[in-house]
Amino acid sequence: MEKVAIAGIGQTPVSENWDKSLKELAGDAAFAALQDAGSEEVDAIFVGNMLSATSAGQAHLGTMLADWIDARGVEAVKVESACSSGGSALRLGIMAVASGEFESVLVVGAEKMTEVKGSEITAALATAADADWEVSQGVSFVALNALLMRRYMYEYGWKHDDFAPFSVNAHENALHNPFARFHQRVTLDAYRKAPMICSPINLMDASPTCDGAAAVLLTRSERAHKPGRPTVEILASAVATDTLAIHDRKNPTWLRAAELSTQKAYAQAGIQPQDVDVFEAHDAFSIMAVLSLEACGFAARGQGPRLGLDGEIGIQGRIPIATRGGLKGRGHPVGATGIYQVVEAAQQLRGECGPTQVDGARIAMTQNIGGSGATIVTHILGIA
Amino acid sequence: MEKVAIAGIGQTPVSENWDKSLKELAGDAAFAALQDAGSEEVDAIFVGNMLSATSAGQAHLGTMLADWIDARGVEAVKVESACSSGGSALRLGIMAVASGEFESVLVVGAEKMTEVKGSEITAALATAADADWEVSQGVSFVALNALLMRRYMYEYGWKHDDFAPFSVNAHENALHNPFARFHQRVTLDAYRKAPMICSPINLMDASPTCDGAAAVLLTRSERAHKPGRPTVEILASAVATDTLAIHDRKNPTWLRAAELSTQKAYAQAGIQPQDVDVFEAHDAFSIMAVLSLEACGFAARGQGPRLGLDGEIGIQGRIPIATRGGLKGRGHPVGATGIYQVVEAAQQLRGECGPTQVDGARIAMTQNIGGSGATIVTHILGIA
Repeated sequence: MEKVAIAGIGQTPVSENWDKSLKELAGDAAFAALQDAGSEEVDAIFVGNMLSATSAGQAHLGTMLADWIDARGVEAVKVESACSSGGSALRLGIMAVASGEFESVLVVGAEKMTEVKGSEITAALATAADADWEVSQGVSFVALNALLMRRYMYEYGWKHDDFAPFSVNAHENALHNPFARFHQRVTLDAYRKAPMICSPINLMDASPTCDGAAAVLLTRSERAHKPGRPTVEILASAVATDTLAIHDRKNPTWLRAAELSTQKAYAQAGIQPQDVDVFEAHDAFSIMAVLSLEACGFAARGQGPRLGLDGEIGIQGRIPIATRGGLKGRGHPVGATGIYQVVEAAQQLRGECGPTQVDGARIAMTQNIGGSGATIVTHILGIA
Repeated sequence: MEKVAIAGIGQTPVSENWDKSLKELAGDAAFAALQDAGSEEVDAIFVGNMLSATSAGQAHLGTMLADWIDARGVEAVKVESACSSGGSALRLGIMAVASGEFESVLVVGAEKMTEVKGSEITAALATAADADWEVSQGVSFVALNALLMRRYMYEYGWKHDDFAPFSVNAHENALHNPFARFHQRVTLDAYRKAPMICSPINLMDASPTCDGAAAVLLTRSERAHKPGRPTVEILASAVATDTLAIHDRKNPTWLRAAELSTQKAYAQAGIQPQDVDVFEAHDAFSIMAVLSLEACGFAARGQGPRLGLDGEIGIQGRIPIATRGGLKGRGHPVGATGIYQVVEAAQQLRGECGPTQVDGARIAMTQNIGGSGATIVTHILGIA
């Protein structure tokens, strides 16, 4: 297998983009990645997206993007695994370059959520859960996460306040990311006073619906080098799955698929958890950040909130997360998120993060989660 | 790259399956393929599907299937390229085995259309076309194909009757396929009298909406052999794309992407058009079969209908198509179709087709088309 590197990165601001369509957002991110790479060569396109049929009346998004960015003729496809669609698309793009099948592969994550009406977006997001055994009971996606968080608090004795640092940290870091959805500081007081969405998840525990697209251009490692900056290489790419319905799991508060996916990724990269300098976690809800940190080996079982309370998730901490705002602060355009995470991890390794730069970052990990822990995609990046 | 073979095939009857859900259909096809292979080993799952969000309220179909067939933990993903979703999923599954990433990959195409109400299925199918520049004008998917057929008849001087052999041949062959949607003979008289859908496309020019799932288990070639039957090997797997909107093409009646995709496939397999013994074409509409035959090099430009009129598409003809009924007779459960085609091509190479067996078939080609020729996936199979 060939070594694969990220030759270029691109992203659009995460926002309510009323004046841009889904394909325009995807195209903007794609062009930014090509410009960053200093290349116009695209041999194949993988698009990560979850909701295009509902949000834009558009299936066939891969070929639509090839058409839109003047890469007509090129092989293209859409990849979907709910909220981990971006990560899954990257996984396949990496395989396509590593196998020698293609020289230059463009992977784009794109999602447009704001044009879907309120109740419809709730229904659309619930398609990530089990339609037969969860959604048919009337449970929404946030409600599933609320059940998880309530159970976790009961089992390990944590209070709601103990989750505040995840929201505070994400918003603090987002202040310095021009592409982030939010640029407002969140205090413990604001966290406490936030409106309840679905107890115990309040507004500050939940990532926002929004629009955005991010892209990476992948090539074989020896072709990715650009003078004046380090080359970011893929050290690992791994996926594991679990039951779609949470009630089918032996232990609902343990992300078994995250553990499996991360074990595979660590083995591929030949590293241990303590070697990770930056971790872009999937903090769609505070509880997901906590469960992910534990399953990846950064905290003991049931002790994830301790990392937040001890300041270990901050830029100077032991395992910095959400360094560009995470899903909570940068925003969570679902199918695009997995690519935003990787773009941000690459920015950290290149040393482009200004006030939220993790000093001397050499290994960055991303974890993209589909459903309530059903599909978990882990990538590890390093400097070539 | 490793040589890849089809270790097992499976399919459900194409029908209105009111008593089975999407995942049950997909599971039935998957189990049939595993049983046919005599194996329970699955390292990764690729699901081709177009409409699950609309038809079943379910995104996240890859992981749902892994969960359902007791392959929990295994990497899984859904692949979508409109009506060529099945072919695209197979393409990626082949890459996953050829690269050495996985030993055994299950590729399933599944679609459930009958539960979607009449007008909604028309809207859902139109998501294969360009939402911004075609569908926004009120044009449905069948209307786009009607425009193509009308233009083609005008340019080359064909009458509607000249397309009848495609429908007659497909239904004739479907009589002998127990999995086919229809088991009724169609005569020239019946073709003439069929109700008009969207002039010049009448009911006998159009494939039906229906439910179905098909599956193949892929492994490295040397592991696929089973005593007493030939091993079916993948000789080529190629994709090319074109503009999503038909009006953007220099020549709307020439499937440029089919030409590109087939040229790549012929080169990979090291063959010429005349070496193909069986061709499972994408006869979603009569006109698509004609355009595909021309672009693949089986007929001169504008002369596709001649193959039908001369009996060359029949089982004894020069280029037999729709040997198990094709999209018209077997049915067209959109995201599943690409896998049905490959299952049927494998049946031909194994010599399992009874009255519609093409004698001495050694090379079979399949072509799966997404949109009105926007994504074209070509596979060539041979006997190892």
